[in-house]
Amino acid sequence: MNKNDIPYKIYLSENEMPKDWYNVRADMKKKPAPLLNPKTHAALKYEDLRPVFCDELVKQELNDDDRLIPIPKAILDFYRMYRPSPLVRAYCLEKKLDTPAHIYYKFEGNNTSGSHKLNSAIAQAYYAKEQGLKGVTTETGAGQWGTALSMACAYFGIDCKVFMVKCSYEQKPFRREVMRTYGASVTPSPSMTTDIGKKINAEFPGTSGSLGCAISEAVECAAKSPGYRYVLGSVLNMVLLHQSIIGLETKSALDKYCIVPDIIIGCAGGGSNLGGLISPFMGEVLRGEKNYKFIAVEPASCPSFTRGKFVYDFCDTGHVCPLAKMYTLGSEFIPSASHAGGLRYHGMSPVLSELYDEGLLEARAVKQTSVFEAATEFARVEGILPAPESSHAIKVAIDEALKCKETGEAKNIVFGLTGTGYFDMKAYENFNDGKMSDYIPSDEDLKRGFDALPKF
Amino acid sequence: MNKNDIPYKIYLSENEMPKDWYNVRADMKKKPAPLLNPKTHAALKYEDLRPVFCDELVKQELNDDDRLIPIPKAILDFYRMYRPSPLVRAYCLEKKLDTPAHIYYKFEGNNTSGSHKLNSAIAQAYYAKEQGLKGVTTETGAGQWGTALSMACAYFGIDCKVFMVKCSYEQKPFRREVMRTYGASVTPSPSMTTDIGKKINAEFPGTSGSLGCAISEAVECAAKSPGYRYVLGSVLNMVLLHQSIIGLETKSALDKYCIVPDIIIGCAGGGSNLGGLISPFMGEVLRGEKNYKFIAVEPASCPSFTRGKFVYDFCDTGHVCPLAKMYTLGSEFIPSASHAGGLRYHGMSPVLSELYDEGLLEARAVKQTSVFEAATEFARVEGILPAPESSHAIKVAIDEALKCKETGEAKNIVFGLTGTGYFDMKAYENFNDGKMSDYIPSDEDLKRGFDALPKF
Repeated sequence: MNKNDIPYKIYLSENEMPKDWYNVRADMKKKPAPLLNPKTHAALKYEDLRPVFCDELVKQELNDDDRLIPIPKAILDFYRMYRPSPLVRAYCLEKKLDTPAHIYYKFEGNNTSGSHKLNSAIAQAYYAKEQGLKGVTTETGAGQWGTALSMACAYFGIDCKVFMVKCSYEQKPFRREVMRTYGASVTPSPSMTTDIGKKINAEFPGTSGSLGCAISEAVECAAKSPGYRYVLGSVLNMVLLHQSIIGLETKSALDKYCIVPDIIIGCAGGGSNLGGLISPFMGEVLRGEKNYKFIAVEPASCPSFTRGKFVYDFCDTGHVCPLAKMYTLGSEFIPSASHAGGLRYHGMSPVLSELYDEGLLEARAVKQTSVFEAATEFARVEGILPAPESSHAIKVAIDEALKCKETGEAKNIVFGLTGTGYFDMKAYENFNDGKMSDYIPSDEDLKRGFDALPKF
Repeated sequence: MNKNDIPYKIYLSENEMPKDWYNVRADMKKKPAPLLNPKTHAALKYEDLRPVFCDELVKQELNDDDRLIPIPKAILDFYRMYRPSPLVRAYCLEKKLDTPAHIYYKFEGNNTSGSHKLNSAIAQAYYAKEQGLKGVTTETGAGQWGTALSMACAYFGIDCKVFMVKCSYEQKPFRREVMRTYGASVTPSPSMTTDIGKKINAEFPGTSGSLGCAISEAVECAAKSPGYRYVLGSVLNMVLLHQSIIGLETKSALDKYCIVPDIIIGCAGGGSNLGGLISPFMGEVLRGEKNYKFIAVEPASCPSFTRGKFVYDFCDTGHVCPLAKMYTLGSEFIPSASHAGGLRYHGMSPVLSELYDEGLLEARAVKQTSVFEAATEFARVEGILPAPESSHAIKVAIDEALKCKETGEAKNIVFGLTGTGYFDMKAYENFNDGKMSDYIPSDEDLKRGFDALPKF
């Protein structure tokens, strides 16, 4: 196809939209390791997980067999309000870089939550509503997940209690107000409303909190609130399942114009976006039909893939959650305060961890100043102000496009633009003022995290 | 057509996009009154306006004859990065209101500037670039226009100097950072960099500035900077011309599904969005082909249509700009500090003023707490967090839909959703905390503004 025949934005019509989520585990020969009980180390089954998660979501979490899971009509109806999201040909960026590469990005920021998180939030809120629950609890760090969940809960008319990492609560008051506008209650974590919060506040007076700690509080709160369950915005298999809508739409849009991607790039924190974007393509690889290069991009300040260990670890600081086998820096690892934005979870999706361990996925760690340089370059030509998280993928997409310039190859590069940076302007301000630093944890820093790994 | 056959979002394909702007003045029997020299009161001609505005824009400003003005290819290319914007069927809002009305909104917030302002910004930056200028100057209040213009200037590689009303500069640091990220320089107004700024600072020490004052500074700065011109984001004929892209797309999308609107609603500050949205429909009315009800919605705290006078007035506080015949509260009118968001200009587009005077357009003034109630209701069901400005239109759309509920009429209501409220969370916070007040200027307050009208 002639380059000029490809529109700036490839949209699918409503009837071209996926009707099922794709479950990559069905195509994995080696399945991700099961979640374990943190005390007995026994593999967790349906009945064990029901007290914590919604029933239907537990089934999805444990379902390693069904390749396609139908998307309920109510969720499809909601998806149609902001999906399909556009697959954009980055003509202006290509021109700026003077590269023969063709760059495409799947833009998930065109909904109020401002990120891809809504894809799973609406599904989880739906299943909670269907089960007749009163509400859900969750944690949020940078605030994207909490925003998305509060929006989803407002839509289905259920309650939403968000534990927001204290430093974000204070530094991002506007994120908090978005959640409140959607009717959610927002509590800074660690709080004095849970046993774990009180314990952590006592042990570390004045702590600004962490994601692992907020998870513990949200889980405890759900357990103690009749009619509530806990929901999580990343890491879990079910979240990757819901996020497969990103990859399915991307694949349909590329297929529509006979475009075969060479490289697929996503930022990686807990893995929700990356897993969702690459799943359907990875399925083709796992079935021996195609071959693609996948690149996970993580912050050099929180390098779980590139410097972590592939072992069983706690998912939370309070150690009330199941153990998961994953690439991890240890549940006590907390990225430096100089780290801006999300992508700060100590672990990584067990599905992606398994695929990475098998060599099906590459990973790169990048420094944040280089990420904001890429973000600014992208914003000025493509007209979208990207979230810091998304900008990790931009950075590597630009790197790969510049390699093509050297070699003269017209590779097709696809990356996930997960969201917008409207609530991250403080970080942009630091960058604009030349005040942003690049902290990289020393081996000694990492050792402290590894020392706290569970022993067995 | 069956109600259920209409998709949530009606998109046009790239080749269905308008190739020309529509100039409603060509269809007006009584043309808007000309701009006058503030000293001599002579009507301004091409040569008079060239020192202030780009040549091509002056031609557009003065062109009352050509119905269609071709959109240059470079602008069409840029439009394609974020246009066509979706026309959304508000199924969820209809359900929530339990109304037989069909509600549609044209959503202009899906670009980084977060509002419709980009439609004219990119055009004005293009003509400046084509003329070989170094850069442009402008003012911004709430920050939408400055953001859009900085983005447009980054795209064409010209300089952008923004005078930002001081209270916004201080209260909206993130807006400022977006502009800086796009490479603009941002100066709080009144500043000490212009004669007018110095004069106003001397007369009113500690003033937090006004839009009228920032306009004067931007005009002076352009006049004193070789290779610069001044650009404006609303009020002027040329701006309404560029914004006609909104109405043209809306009309094409409605026509595609054989939907005939009964009521078309837009918020009105200087008139850029309202004028753009209604122009092509107003053209049909002016040519005697159709009949629609148009409603302009303005804040009760800045009621230029509903309580202003239709006279010649200064466009700026410093009285360096031309006089325009428009509905105005007087160039010294400043809305109360309790007024949130934009829509705070003392005057109104001369085109819309003329149409309003002829009775072709209705106007309503609404209180801001009712606007934020409507905004919150809309956000929770439609999933878009609206800008305060846009929410004025939402408020009246809801009012009209509820009237339909009473009468049982299935009217088609179309409104302009001009942007998102990401940078207005302080106002939402005040509303969420019950701290928002409704200030309405007294007749005495208005008299002070009217007393400052030019005498002739």
